[in-house]
Amino acid sequence: MLPESITALISALNKLPGIGPRSAERIALHIVQADSVAVKQLAETMLQAREKIRFCTTCGALTEKSPCSICTDTRRDASLVCVVEHAVDILSIEKSGTYRGKFHVLGGNISPLDGIEPEDLRIAELEKRLTREFIKEVIIALGTDVEGDATSHYLAKRLARKGLKITRIAYGLPAGSGLEFADELTLSRALEGRREMN
Amino acid sequence: MLPESITALISALNKLPGIGPRSAERIALHIVQADSVAVKQLAETMLQAREKIRFCTTCGALTEKSPCSICTDTRRDASLVCVVEHAVDILSIEKSGTYRGKFHVLGGNISPLDGIEPEDLRIAELEKRLTREFIKEVIIALGTDVEGDATSHYLAKRLARKGLKITRIAYGLPAGSGLEFADELTLSRALEGRREMN
Repeated sequence: MLPESITALISALNKLPGIGPRSAERIALHIVQADSVAVKQLAETMLQAREKIRFCTTCGALTEKSPCSICTDTRRDASLVCVVEHAVDILSIEKSGTYRGKFHVLGGNISPLDGIEPEDLRIAELEKRLTREFIKEVIIALGTDVEGDATSHYLAKRLARKGLKITRIAYGLPAGSGLEFADELTLSRALEGRREMN
Repeated sequence: MLPESITALISALNKLPGIGPRSAERIALHIVQADSVAVKQLAETMLQAREKIRFCTTCGALTEKSPCSICTDTRRDASLVCVVEHAVDILSIEKSGTYRGKFHVLGGNISPLDGIEPEDLRIAELEKRLTREFIKEVIIALGTDVEGDATSHYLAKRLARKGLKITRIAYGLPAGSGLEFADELTLSRALEGRREMN
């Protein structure tokens, strides 16, 4: 019933993350009725962003020029490197506003079932950095799923060397949440990770 | 902190209906890391859709060629015209699958506060159709808000002529909903619109 060009747009939008069929339809109908100049601008902005953004050759972050602004920022603590799974995780940690070290993007977790082996991740690059840069602590900030756990332990073992501290971020109850919303694993980890209150 | 081209994309996406800042960010980060060919295709589909889609000169529907496929469909009942506010409303009615007549898009509701007067709507076009086409019934399917009510009554008065039936779609309890979710106005309309059960 809908014209072909709208159906095509709906199915293209539907492939974007978090856009279901209903909101794809709503956006498509908005676009075809929107100001022609605005639609051109949106398309152009999209192409520009895709074209300009690359991965930082040092840390793997999303950036317009490599090395990225975090890697070249001399005010940041170069003795700390935080290892994350994806480039977007940097954003989450930056938003928390508490971390002032550097980053290293792994590009995934080890997952033999999905065919992801250690050599598919940016681990060799991290080892290179450990020899070249004056890194005192590697903070592992991977997920708490099976793959995240396995990768964290693999990394801790493989990176171990004299004078290098390897830590993993704390897992426990999320802020603002009650015990009744926590699953057993979260609770057991929160208990294990308990700290003395002075 | 984020590269300029990503922030620009986030704010452009944020302007689309139903896309808040969080999902705009998520989509933007997906786009800059997506396959370059796929991003070009999405941008192209968007531009194509905007370029091809126009309003049907007869009924006001969204279409690639005017008159639209509904206006030219001889299997549809040309004696019935359903008046809707927006072109997208046609889609909702078509999805219900019960209507087989024609449509007429008004383009809005009368709203003096917003500066929308009867002459800003496609009422004159509807009057022209009433003289040219063999229309026996005009079904008014506007919203139940103040503007929708006012416009419906205005239309009923202005279009009144011998041999033309003017109806308004029924308002009442939505399907699958209980009395406890209905506001007073909906309930009073549902009572007013009660029908005999045979």
